[in-house]
Amino acid sequence: MAETPLHSPLYAGLFGDAETLALFTDEAEIAAMVEVERAIARVQGGLGLIPGKAAAAVDRELAALADRGDLPTPEELAQGTASAGVPVPALVAALRRRIGREAADHLHFAATSQDIVDTGLMLRLGKAVAVLEKRLAGLVDALATLARAHGTTPMAGRTRTQGATPVSFGFRVAGWALPLARALARTRRLSRDGLAVQLGGASGDLAALFESAGAKGLPDDFGARLAGELGLSDAPPWMTDRQPLVQVADLCGAICTAGEKLAADVLIAARSEIGELRLKGAGGSSTMPQKQNPVRAEAVVALARQGRGLAAMLSGTPAHQDERDGAGWMAEWLILPQLLPVTGALLLQAGALVDTLEPQVRRMGEIVTQGGGALLAERLSFALVPHVGRARSQDLVKAAAAKTRTQDITLVDALKEIADSETGEGGAGLRALDWEELGSFAAASRPAAAMTERLLAEVDRLTRAG
Amino acid sequence: MAETPLHSPLYAGLFGDAETLALFTDEAEIAAMVEVERAIARVQGGLGLIPGKAAAAVDRELAALADRGDLPTPEELAQGTASAGVPVPALVAALRRRIGREAADHLHFAATSQDIVDTGLMLRLGKAVAVLEKRLAGLVDALATLARAHGTTPMAGRTRTQGATPVSFGFRVAGWALPLARALARTRRLSRDGLAVQLGGASGDLAALFESAGAKGLPDDFGARLAGELGLSDAPPWMTDRQPLVQVADLCGAICTAGEKLAADVLIAARSEIGELRLKGAGGSSTMPQKQNPVRAEAVVALARQGRGLAAMLSGTPAHQDERDGAGWMAEWLILPQLLPVTGALLLQAGALVDTLEPQVRRMGEIVTQGGGALLAERLSFALVPHVGRARSQDLVKAAAAKTRTQDITLVDALKEIADSETGEGGAGLRALDWEELGSFAAASRPAAAMTERLLAEVDRLTRAG
Amino acid sequence: MAETPLHSPLYAGLFGDAETLALFTDEAEIAAMVEVERAIARVQGGLGLIPGKAAAAVDRELAALADRGDLPTPEELAQGTASAGVPVPALVAALRRRIGREAADHLHFAATSQDIVDTGLMLRLGKAVAVLEKRLAGLVDALATLARAHGTTPMAGRTRTQGATPVSFGFRVAGWALPLARALARTRRLSRDGLAVQLGGASGDLAALFESAGAKGLPDDFGARLAGELGLSDAPPWMTDRQPLVQVADLCGAICTAGEKLAADVLIAARSEIGELRLKGAGGSSTMPQKQNPVRAEAVVALARQGRGLAAMLSGTPAHQDERDGAGWMAEWLILPQLLPVTGALLLQAGALVDTLEPQVRRMGEIVTQGGGALLAERLSFALVPHVGRARSQDLVKAAAAKTRTQDITLVDALKEIADSETGEGGAGLRALDWEELGSFAAASRPAAAMTERLLAEVDRLTRAG
Amino acid sequence: MAETPLHSPLYAGLFGDAETLALFTDEAEIAAMVEVERAIARVQGGLGLIPGKAAAAVDRELAALADRGDLPTPEELAQGTASAGVPVPALVAALRRRIGREAADHLHFAATSQDIVDTGLMLRLGKAVAVLEKRLAGLVDALATLARAHGTTPMAGRTRTQGATPVSFGFRVAGWALPLARALARTRRLSRDGLAVQLGGASGDLAALFESAGAKGLPDDFGARLAGELGLSDAPPWMTDRQPLVQVADLCGAICTAGEKLAADVLIAARSEIGELRLKGAGGSSTMPQKQNPVRAEAVVALARQGRGLAAMLSGTPAHQDERDGAGWMAEWLILPQLLPVTGALLLQAGALVDTLEPQVRRMGEIVTQGGGALLAERLSFALVPHVGRARSQDLVKAAAAKTRTQDITLVDALKEIADSETGEGGAGLRALDWEELGSFAAASRPAAAMTERLLAEVDRLTRAG
Repeated sequence: MAETPLHSPLYAGLFGDAETLALFTDEAEIAAMVEVERAIARVQGGLGLIPGKAAAAVDRELAALADRGDLPTPEELAQGTASAGVPVPALVAALRRRIGREAADHLHFAATSQDIVDTGLMLRLGKAVAVLEKRLAGLVDALATLARAHGTTPMAGRTRTQGATPVSFGFRVAGWALPLARALARTRRLSRDGLAVQLGGASGDLAALFESAGAKGLPDDFGARLAGELGLSDAPPWMTDRQPLVQVADLCGAICTAGEKLAADVLIAARSEIGELRLKGAGGSSTMPQKQNPVRAEAVVALARQGRGLAAMLSGTPAHQDERDGAGWMAEWLILPQLLPVTGALLLQAGALVDTLEPQVRRMGEIVTQGGGALLAERLSFALVPHVGRARSQDLVKAAAAKTRTQDITLVDALKEIADSETGEGGAGLRALDWEELGSFAAASRPAAAMTERLLAEVDRLTRAG
Repeated sequence: MAETPLHSPLYAGLFGDAETLALFTDEAEIAAMVEVERAIARVQGGLGLIPGKAAAAVDRELAALADRGDLPTPEELAQGTASAGVPVPALVAALRRRIGREAADHLHFAATSQDIVDTGLMLRLGKAVAVLEKRLAGLVDALATLARAHGTTPMAGRTRTQGATPVSFGFRVAGWALPLARALARTRRLSRDGLAVQLGGASGDLAALFESAGAKGLPDDFGARLAGELGLSDAPPWMTDRQPLVQVADLCGAICTAGEKLAADVLIAARSEIGELRLKGAGGSSTMPQKQNPVRAEAVVALARQGRGLAAMLSGTPAHQDERDGAGWMAEWLILPQLLPVTGALLLQAGALVDTLEPQVRRMGEIVTQGGGALLAERLSFALVPHVGRARSQDLVKAAAAKTRTQDITLVDALKEIADSETGEGGAGLRALDWEELGSFAAASRPAAAMTERLLAEVDRLTRAG
Repeated sequence: MAETPLHSPLYAGLFGDAETLALFTDEAEIAAMVEVERAIARVQGGLGLIPGKAAAAVDRELAALADRGDLPTPEELAQGTASAGVPVPALVAALRRRIGREAADHLHFAATSQDIVDTGLMLRLGKAVAVLEKRLAGLVDALATLARAHGTTPMAGRTRTQGATPVSFGFRVAGWALPLARALARTRRLSRDGLAVQLGGASGDLAALFESAGAKGLPDDFGARLAGELGLSDAPPWMTDRQPLVQVADLCGAICTAGEKLAADVLIAARSEIGELRLKGAGGSSTMPQKQNPVRAEAVVALARQGRGLAAMLSGTPAHQDERDGAGWMAEWLILPQLLPVTGALLLQAGALVDTLEPQVRRMGEIVTQGGGALLAERLSFALVPHVGRARSQDLVKAAAAKTRTQDITLVDALKEIADSETGEGGAGLRALDWEELGSFAAASRPAAAMTERLLAEVDRLTRAG
Repeated sequence: MAETPLHSPLYAGLFGDAETLALFTDEAEIAAMVEVERAIARVQGGLGLIPGKAAAAVDRELAALADRGDLPTPEELAQGTASAGVPVPALVAALRRRIGREAADHLHFAATSQDIVDTGLMLRLGKAVAVLEKRLAGLVDALATLARAHGTTPMAGRTRTQGATPVSFGFRVAGWALPLARALARTRRLSRDGLAVQLGGASGDLAALFESAGAKGLPDDFGARLAGELGLSDAPPWMTDRQPLVQVADLCGAICTAGEKLAADVLIAARSEIGELRLKGAGGSSTMPQKQNPVRAEAVVALARQGRGLAAMLSGTPAHQDERDGAGWMAEWLILPQLLPVTGALLLQAGALVDTLEPQVRRMGEIVTQGGGALLAERLSFALVPHVGRARSQDLVKAAAAKTRTQDITLVDALKEIADSETGEGGAGLRALDWEELGSFAAASRPAAAMTERLLAEVDRLTRAG
């Protein structure tokens, strides 16, 4: 594998995500920075901070370079990047060599390297987030469909690793969909409000621009104009307040955990001993033909850990010092560009995993009814309460449960037998109960079906939300 | 120190926060859980899910227990907690022993332990977040006042550890205030929308409530009513989707970093060699009387690292498995209750730190003008551009800078000399410049003052936002 | 729960460890620092750096204070600690007030606060590590006994969640014991070599001691003498090289993961659907009597995550700056004292968990033979190779496996049928195989039994190692 | 930048390390796995577990493939890797297609994918660790030389950001060298003992090998032979005990922190206001010619954070479940291969940083003597003690310090004045002191010089240690 298998041909089918990786290449970074320089020039020209003609020249000549594939190459800028610790000075110099004098003189006017790097990064994050959004929407949709199809398929609900009460497979799946739908809504909010333009100049106070604006003053909407040009949000300089990046990382972490939820549950349900799920095309073994390695689910879990770990590293970056902090800034470069392809790959694998799920309805039925129908205990207990009260009800159910451990009898039948000898008004009430209905697992999964509907309604609401 | 110095008498003045610590005690937890049980009974009574009279009895009798200090003690519940892995069964049993039969029979109706623990935690988080909000508001206010007082106090702006351009001390301080104001706004949003009630029943599908509601059905607004009773938000069960907790942790992390920003800058500015800030009452040393140990700033940085670390641990918790996950749940208990007092203590220390700041205006002035006024280079460079163009301007400033290194002359005077011999139209323009104004550091910090106003306007907007 | 449930009476049975907690109290810290001051005086007296009589007075008078319970209280030192950011100045002043003039004048001679705090911490870490060592030894012993008892108990080996080949329960348990035995050996090495005395003086160069030693010079073995007095190791000052603490944290992390291994496997094996393990006295549920919540296993996993998280925070502390770094130092105080009780509690819970394990041998047998004995595939495949070669062998096993999916036949019988019609020399060889032996699960678990022996021999070697 | 700038041409001069990156490519992984398969065959042949002729054929034919560049390509194995979740099945199949029947039949005999992947990784880690070792040795050597040259160059010692006592620049540098020398010694121990071969077969009990060995038994030294062939250590299977990898990660973390120490100190000392260090060829700024951006120091700090973060992620991996854990395994692939190039790049940058350090001895002298020589306070205080006792000595120094704040006088002169009027025997003693010597900063840095010698002796000892 490569130093990270994200971009490794060998592991492309497990961890690769060509679409987001393409946004995090040297070339994509250079192109994005050039876009930023063009937008700055356009806005400055529009406000008369630089001559309109010069601004137009910057915009036009840089566009032409990009169009004809003549932007500086990474190799051309490598030495300058090593020396300055940031590619912008070398990039600006290389661009100036390629364009006319007037454009060259007004390129990168009053901007600082961090303006260009940070805003260029936001442009690419915006595109990456759009990819995540598209995939989240598809994944949520697939899960909602699956949940609807199995809203009434009885399955054992497990809490703290133990069989608890009957639920339905659809309920389980709706529980996978909801956090992903929440992440989807959050992704959309981020796209709309959270990706901020950076513009501060050398020390973050826009001094050179203020001075250049002179008596007419620097218009308040300067940042908003630039944001508008680039499809980003306006914000005061965030050179030392890196929350705009932390929020992207936190969102990726939330997506990773939401995706991991379904994969982790699949890893249990597809175990050999459980077998409630089978996975189409799961990885086999030449000498152990019985094996169905849950490769995609494993990859999702591994990517989730990586994504959460990287997100924690980014949000763990100490506060940036002084007016701008080089070490803190570089640290982000090593984390964030990796986090988006990790999150993207996770969604790819999760999507593919959902496509290969084969619910084993019969096996689910076997497990939920195991142990003499012991999972009906809570249901039966509540059914008795109106007639004999809480404490007596629990005693009767416990007595019935004890019977099932020594006799070959189901919990509901054992309870019915006990109820038959219950005296008084309560006993009469018990005998009048619909015992067939009480012992029905289809009936017992109805609340889960109802809750599935509620969860899916919430999923639907979140999915439609802008 | 105690196993965590947060609650240690010895370290109370460094890391203690009695106000938030009081929310995270066994007693506070028990009291909050009792509040939750009361609210559940009231809502169930109101909807006829349990008899109205029984509901009133639960509510009234538990309130009476609390009032007369007769709630179960931690010691009474310890064994049951160890055995069940959660205090609720022992708590409910102990409460039932203390109240009348009818109330006992309808207490904790159809609820599961996690409903009570999670909702009780949210109640306490709500109170803790209110404490943070109050302190953030105070801190932001103090900083805004300080920033306003020093909007035009010239100070060296530093980027990547190097003197860059003149800014003002007020600009620096406004840059401390803004992320705190953002955190304040976020804290308020969390209080309003983000603290969700938990109600799912045994497997998260509210099966027992659905069944108990019978033909009339479980009203859609059941959760909203409970949320209303408790001052929390409504949400579908989040038993395996722990984002409601992660968002509290992420916010604490953001507060920590915002607080650390000012402390980290203070640690630099108060260094012996720099001395731009002095700290009233800083820690001394018996044998080294010259020392002024910046104790509070150190404590803030240490607490910030701790807070971010704990936040990362919480957001790093793997997805909860199945319908409810005991190990994942317990892991949260070890992290979150500690995170709030850490964040609270950080704000206490940061507030006290700001109160002790003594800006050394004269020393700031010495530093910003050091090196022959080299920090004016950018300003001078931009002033020349309209007359001689960008490239020539940079060349002239570089030549002047070279002069300052060999002669005893300021940068502006060196540049003026060079400008005097510049020929052509450009030269004439240069000679017409207001050189006194160009060399004035007061003038040079005007953009910083203007930006300070902008930042403070944004601070003000955020602070006023609900 | 308290702000950390480690010291909470309510949760004492889940997360509490009274023995290690007692080492991390204010009182224990003060007592340890007093021990350090005494040892410093003794060594300095012995070397004539301070008058022998004064040294003896320091030693004796401080011992007397400790003996009669008259050491300064946390409350007495709280204000001084808050002001200096460290308790030592207040402690030394309070001690001086309690002892005679000569002792007072020579107490804390040429030492700095960090010498006292760090060395005092090491003293307490040494005691805590001894507790861990004792528990690790007990746990390893219990597991070795269990492994020996079940070396030949057939159980399904699972890889990547899928049934793979037969192993034995003893083999599984030996695999739990080995990493714990490794941690035990490492714990002993740490006790012996890794807990270093700190002695550097104000700036880490022992300047005051060097000066005080005057012409006779400061003996090279000064540190070794102090280490000897305190049962610690000698080392150059590690005021900014915190690896001595990081190594304690790394070890705790390794212990946590080794303990988690068994708990995580228990959480799977004790699932309702699997049931290979039952847990004596597992947590029940009033309305779901069938449940056996694996409380202790959950607690171990939760504590393991906490321990690893804290260890990562400690090893993640940035390099300490300059000669001594206050913020970095304080950050350690918030982490390390908590890590030892977490690790200690984990070992308590893991020990109790092992005590309650009830292996369900019959259920293990059911699972390993499930699916027509499919887990014998590898074994059968290798048995055929000498007769028909690798490729043909795999084809035959695959064909047999296919048969088991359509007919009611075991894998070994299906393979035998196929082998009967195999022609040529290979076929004759196959027919001569001992098919009964080949289909025996007892026989199939023999390699696991042999490997169990090897692992236990390694466990034994590590356990005996000093 | 690429998704990680480690392998990005644009950032190669900041974060690139071609030498270690070359070890973490798909091709290098495939080649290493082929080496492992060859060694397994040789050992099995030597022990008669497979026919000697077949073993020789495997060894020879795979060597020939490698020699003539005909190993399978990543692209050829990509689909199989995606399907199996691991490249080994596809690799073995592709190799079998390339070699003769007999070799094919005995290739990968009784091994499992994890044996090949883990052992192949260890081979590459061994090479990477050798690179780290070489660089650490060079770095330690350069620092030791620098420390020796400046053992007596007076510099202010700073503790908790405040000037404390005079030390020497060499002492500071020796303090950088020591933790790196410790890391070097640890690296060598790891190379010698810590890189373990993995060989467990399908479920970790070597079942197939045990069976194949038959009556003659599997020799105890099987693993040792394989380890010997590959230059690795022997160990029982560590399929679920990942400490062998965690220890590599912990070491990388320690190296990162040791490297960060010097860079973090450089970032302070090279600040514009301090200027004790200048950096040859530091990054400039076109409009701010006074700037000397400390690019390499920033890169070291950023890489250190990344390295520690990745190390924490690896040691934070939860315990692997069952006999082998796919998700946990994959998670390692995303972390560890990246950690070595990060650590390698950090050492490259740290080495280059040391080469560019230009100590400003005059500026160090200015700072250490600032404030009227206040940094002599501790020294003076201790000089007075033999004559007037501790308490009186401190009072006199405090009085002298107060004088320096109101009069234009140095601390030593003020103290001498005060001493002149001290009465009694003590006063006579004070007046007999060698005040010139006491006020000499050269003299005051002598203890630091002595300690420098001690630290360098320890460095030397560690460096020579095997």
